Amino acid sequence: MPSQFDPPSGTRDFLAADVEQREHAFGVIRAVAERYGFEPLQTPAFERLDVLLGKYGDEGDKLVFKILRRGEHEASGEADLALRYDLTVPLARVAAAYGSQLPVPYKRYAIGPVWRADRPGKDRYREFVQCDLDTLGSSSVLADAEALCAQHDALAELGLRDFTILLNSRRVLSGLLEAFGVPAGIGIQVLISLDKLDKMPPAGVVAELTDRGLATAEAGELVDTLIAPDAADRLRVALKHSDAGVAGLDEVDTVLSLVAGQIPAERIAFTPRMVRGLSYYTGPIWELVAPGVAGSIGSGGRYDHLIEALGGPDVPGTGASIGVERILAMLAAAAPRARLDVAVTVMSPALSGPAFGLAGTARAAGLRASVYLGGSGKLGKQLRWASDSGARWCLIYGEKEADAGTVTVRDMVSGEQTAIPVGDLGERLAALRGDS
Amino acid sequence: MPSQFDPPSGTRDFLAADVEQREHAFGVIRAVAERYGFEPLQTPAFERLDVLLGKYGDEGDKLVFKILRRGEHEASGEADLALRYDLTVPLARVAAAYGSQLPVPYKRYAIGPVWRADRPGKDRYREFVQCDLDTLGSSSVLADAEALCAQHDALAELGLRDFTILLNSRRVLSGLLEAFGVPAGIGIQVLISLDKLDKMPPAGVVAELTDRGLATAEAGELVDTLIAPDAADRLRVALKHSDAGVAGLDEVDTVLSLVAGQIPAERIAFTPRMVRGLSYYTGPIWELVAPGVAGSIGSGGRYDHLIEALGGPDVPGTGASIGVERILAMLAAAAPRARLDVAVTVMSPALSGPAFGLAGTARAAGLRASVYLGGSGKLGKQLRWASDSGARWCLIYGEKEADAGTVTVRDMVSGEQTAIPVGDLGERLAALRGDS
Repeated sequence: MPSQFDPPSGTRDFLAADVEQREHAFGVIRAVAERYGFEPLQTPAFERLDVLLGKYGDEGDKLVFKILRRGEHEASGEADLALRYDLTVPLARVAAAYGSQLPVPYKRYAIGPVWRADRPGKDRYREFVQCDLDTLGSSSVLADAEALCAQHDALAELGLRDFTILLNSRRVLSGLLEAFGVPAGIGIQVLISLDKLDKMPPAGVVAELTDRGLATAEAGELVDTLIAPDAADRLRVALKHSDAGVAGLDEVDTVLSLVAGQIPAERIAFTPRMVRGLSYYTGPIWELVAPGVAGSIGSGGRYDHLIEALGGPDVPGTGASIGVERILAMLAAAAPRARLDVAVTVMSPALSGPAFGLAGTARAAGLRASVYLGGSGKLGKQLRWASDSGARWCLIYGEKEADAGTVTVRDMVSGEQTAIPVGDLGERLAALRGDS
Repeated sequence: MPSQFDPPSGTRDFLAADVEQREHAFGVIRAVAERYGFEPLQTPAFERLDVLLGKYGDEGDKLVFKILRRGEHEASGEADLALRYDLTVPLARVAAAYGSQLPVPYKRYAIGPVWRADRPGKDRYREFVQCDLDTLGSSSVLADAEALCAQHDALAELGLRDFTILLNSRRVLSGLLEAFGVPAGIGIQVLISLDKLDKMPPAGVVAELTDRGLATAEAGELVDTLIAPDAADRLRVALKHSDAGVAGLDEVDTVLSLVAGQIPAERIAFTPRMVRGLSYYTGPIWELVAPGVAGSIGSGGRYDHLIEALGGPDVPGTGASIGVERILAMLAAAAPRARLDVAVTVMSPALSGPAFGLAGTARAAGLRASVYLGGSGKLGKQLRWASDSGARWCLIYGEKEADAGTVTVRDMVSGEQTAIPVGDLGERLAALRGDS
């Protein structure tokens, strides 16, 4: 039941356990990206409207969150800024703005929220984090293989075991269209239909292809070739006489051999029917899928003219995108971490000063610590708070301890209590910390 | 000269060195906050417009970035959402939405961008990061002292040495107004004038006070008391007969004694003339200043009715805000970190596979590594790239090495080259990494 205190439709508040799970995942991806020599980039949440519009097609443009002009212009009802819709258009702008300051090639990663006014649904949000690794300025297939390996390593280090990389090449697909005599004018349409082979019965795809102008026999043979268990082998035969096809197969083979030492063989397969709907890819393309998960958990490919089309310089590009929101949803929710290691009682106002100091000693020993901030002077109530905070130890400091110059360290798991001299507390806590 | 590729006015792109400096600082603050038992909270970039408007006064409302309604409603020119203006209104909403799920007290920290349509200027941005620590649900002065200590530790760990904490209490100020016979109706106005003592000659403040209705003699004496070198002592005398004043002085003394073991004495001082312009504070207030820096680098205080006023539950609150953007501007720009530890040459297409594998070996040894992604087969050019990447070592793998089963490890500082068996590379790199 939505309440007036809920976050806006399609957005989420992340309380402690969620923030910890998310930041841990982002940290893993960041570390992998840096190990591959990708450097971080952060751009503003919004861009000028003209930088964004016209880049995502009509449907995409409708999903852009536009920001109203301010001051005297607000009444115009016009927008001049818009929240970023992806991380690629900002990358193109940055490549244009800082060209000579950027290394060549420019290998960057970006992890940050984007905003789309999609209809919210299960696991579909209006504010969600994208995570991209891209290399601008290299035509080498090594750059494709590097992005793919980094993406694979990130998923593996996030704890995913059961996923598969479907690899193909746009040039293989061009060769295929050539080999099956598909007129160039309908090539992209045919690919969009073939992209549905995962979701639609083959006969439906054949029907679509004949609607688009292919002869029934050719359409049937094309689909049969792609869905055959030995599709990859059949394609190698079918493409023998196509220059694009041969180049594409070579590209696929090169990627497979480059990654062989780093990606387990059972996790990657040449998959001719994997098309990727988007028209801007020019070389290797790939998609990461996991059993039981609809859609992909990552994708990537070479897009040699995209940056220029998005308003940036004319540089070749390749990159990988990690579906981090979908992956976070797959990972078991982490057990919420305890808020505290050490809880310190405050038995009376007069003892609050020493108690505050004991918490400081615990922090200096590298532990998370806090004094009791409530109004009760009862030990039972304060131990309850210590327990609710998940504290591993509770420091009890009452009149008795004050008189004796000691502090009672209570093990919150065993309930065992030990009185130790106040002066030894730091050392003792550091030792307990090391043991636990 | 602004170009079409610049980020929107008042916003910034952060390239690698900037991101590293900023993320390092945020990481330091995060670690300190967690050591004190504050837990993280992240809320959406935008809130419903009605959640934000009316919370920041008329001037504040004008600075809110509003988001246009979408779809068929876009033409109305109306807004329904707005970018968050601070982190406190979202906190109030979260406290209302998740009340019973949150720990009591709820100690949270938040580090994230906020957006204000201010006129951009030197060190004044429209997108900037705020960093808040707050405790909701505790009336204890221990909570105030805890927030203050955490804030202090964060600044100290960020490397700031030369800063001072100006401490006061709203109750001291109430007592002061009482002791000087200031009518309750003009109390806040008088405080706003007194707040200018740092920027305006005392005579100017006296003139403002008499304009506001104070007798000249009283106004003069009030200002003299506050700017005297022994203001704190004079106030202790002047407030002797005011209940609020005595309570306020006691509050200040308690905070000072609580933090005594953790904040060096020379860094904190009871400063009666420190007023803080905002009207919502109810207890201790403080401001952190540094020589040569206009304005404050941090502030905080108790605000027992603010969360309710902002639409949240009626809970006491206290907190500290770290002026992280100003602090980042004070810290010397960090030397940009090298992008790579290990650069791997690709001397010919045939050798690209083994080179790719060598980079993988380096990464497995915990080093940041990449193969050369350019088109040149010349060693000089590739060494230049290795040097530009800041690589500490370059792995050279040409025909000679391939024939010998070795790889040449070049120390990029000394220029020294050593051929080692390919099979020993991982171990050797791990050792080099340990040494450097």
